[in-house]
Amino acid sequence: MIDTSNKQIHLERLPDGALEESHFRTTVGSVPTPQPGELLVKTILISVDPANRAWMNGPTYRPQISAGEVMPAYALAEVVDAGDTDVQTGTIVFADTGWQEWAAVPADTAVPIPIFSDFSHHLSTLGLTGMTAYFGLLDVGKVKAGDTVVVSAAAGATGNVVGQLARIKGAARVVGISGSDEKNAMLERELGFDATVNHRRPTVAQELAAACPDGIDLYYDNVGGPLLNDVLELCNTYARVVCSGAISQYDAGSPPPGPTQVPLKIVTHRLRLEGFIILDYFERWAEAAEEMAGWVRSGELKVLEDVIEGIDAAPQALIGLLNGANVGKRLVRVAPDPVLATA
Amino acid sequence: MIDTSNKQIHLERLPDGALEESHFRTTVGSVPTPQPGELLVKTILISVDPANRAWMNGPTYRPQISAGEVMPAYALAEVVDAGDTDVQTGTIVFADTGWQEWAAVPADTAVPIPIFSDFSHHLSTLGLTGMTAYFGLLDVGKVKAGDTVVVSAAAGATGNVVGQLARIKGAARVVGISGSDEKNAMLERELGFDATVNHRRPTVAQELAAACPDGIDLYYDNVGGPLLNDVLELCNTYARVVCSGAISQYDAGSPPPGPTQVPLKIVTHRLRLEGFIILDYFERWAEAAEEMAGWVRSGELKVLEDVIEGIDAAPQALIGLLNGANVGKRLVRVAPDPVLATA
Repeated sequence: MIDTSNKQIHLERLPDGALEESHFRTTVGSVPTPQPGELLVKTILISVDPANRAWMNGPTYRPQISAGEVMPAYALAEVVDAGDTDVQTGTIVFADTGWQEWAAVPADTAVPIPIFSDFSHHLSTLGLTGMTAYFGLLDVGKVKAGDTVVVSAAAGATGNVVGQLARIKGAARVVGISGSDEKNAMLERELGFDATVNHRRPTVAQELAAACPDGIDLYYDNVGGPLLNDVLELCNTYARVVCSGAISQYDAGSPPPGPTQVPLKIVTHRLRLEGFIILDYFERWAEAAEEMAGWVRSGELKVLEDVIEGIDAAPQALIGLLNGANVGKRLVRVAPDPVLATA
Repeated sequence: MIDTSNKQIHLERLPDGALEESHFRTTVGSVPTPQPGELLVKTILISVDPANRAWMNGPTYRPQISAGEVMPAYALAEVVDAGDTDVQTGTIVFADTGWQEWAAVPADTAVPIPIFSDFSHHLSTLGLTGMTAYFGLLDVGKVKAGDTVVVSAAAGATGNVVGQLARIKGAARVVGISGSDEKNAMLERELGFDATVNHRRPTVAQELAAACPDGIDLYYDNVGGPLLNDVLELCNTYARVVCSGAISQYDAGSPPPGPTQVPLKIVTHRLRLEGFIILDYFERWAEAAEEMAGWVRSGELKVLEDVIEGIDAAPQALIGLLNGANVGKRLVRVAPDPVLATA
């Protein structure tokens, strides 16, 4: 038992439409005592993800959030009390701590993370979102040299890595779609995107066509919505669509109209739309993370992070994320990086 | 040059919406003389396919039909004059003869068909539609023992074979969707479907849910439209959707609304939607056709054909097909089966 308090942010009410600060409530409780099989962990950095919002709408790969729960979220955390388990104190784990300073988590759901890059990288480019980009682009999308690759939410945590990996893998043309001209300028200037399109402009379909003179071979979709239909329109035969996210559908009361190109164009152009979730790739994580870390060290893969300070800012961090306020991986810092034992 | 006439049916006007007899015009011309590289063939049996209608709407895997053209169509035909090619006279070929009694076709587009079953079988269960079912279900859909398999247009040329092959491959449950109770009764009674649903009833979504108590693992989609959304709703994690046709979209002026489950459910349930066209599988045709012929001989795979007599009936045969009038593979007989040389 740690002699301190535990700030917790609860999802007080489930949202009907757009998420607001009023859906959350902060309490200060005590630090929990680990039950058998549990670890007491101290939350360091929280990952803020569009999927957090999807969890409020219904069961996904995890049960729907219930009103009143501490808002669930993945974080990097330090094991402070290993309870009756054989985990080492001081181990850094990736766990569903939720939005709270201290959490008791089942040891069998806490994944020990070997830290071999900057601490925060293990939640961004070497974390779930970066590894999502890796497996989605390489395994599901089977990116090939010469492809025209388009990615939506291109300045987001996953999208920026997708675009950079496509370049590393020899794509002929990498086109990013985001909701701001500033983000797009950064993607072209700093991350090597060949062209970008702002999806908030009414001429997005025409601009996308102009940005992809040879059509589209691979679309990495983070958003769904009308943009997916515009992309399908431009898809070449055998194009692959990686369905990695549907941000446009998470924060909406009712789903937007579906893409009218489905399924006719899928048939005539032999397209493949495939969904995946990074959870299915855990066994290959270590090997892939090492390859990614190599590209980070060599400078080929730049890390784009957007760190918000303090657990109190978590609701606003998520709401902003859903409105496209972030540039790169959004994180909430709850405590300073721990001092790691040198290996 | 053959001393007879050549009845030809032209697509006189491109349709805007539903296809009607008035879109066609019949003429009687002379038998063509093969140009260099061409064969003169006599049309025996014409294949009538929903795709014929799709060809009128725009380029697909073939250029759009132009107004005035002889209506294109695949047929079994007999080589009567091999011109300057080295093809044997009397060879039976599968070729785009169009709706006419005689055609000059480029020899390199005419596929010689070894006849080893009833003549018509080579256009139905052993023809493009049956082989579409084979490769779509086995290769694209990767059907597994224990799957719940659902197929739309289940009494159609492809659908009836899909359902029977799913049973042969050990699916736990085979559910057919068609537009008539009579067709459904036949599918259950004669072809071994476990359950059927009539898509014309307003309660189709609930009836489909009741017919699939363990959800859906594989959907073989021939129709698209609102039904696709109902199916997606019931899909299990890792379900596969084979996009083989979009009949509901072929005969419509404007496309129906897209499935609102796309892409959110594709992401959350790791679905795969994949389109394919049988043209991509020609190299494996012979081997697969032999396996199919074995099932036909053993009686495990019943052949369902719907033969319309006379080339004059071709427009009505296609229009009826688009309205679901057929049971099994619809063919138009232009001439009697040729007497084949015994092997």
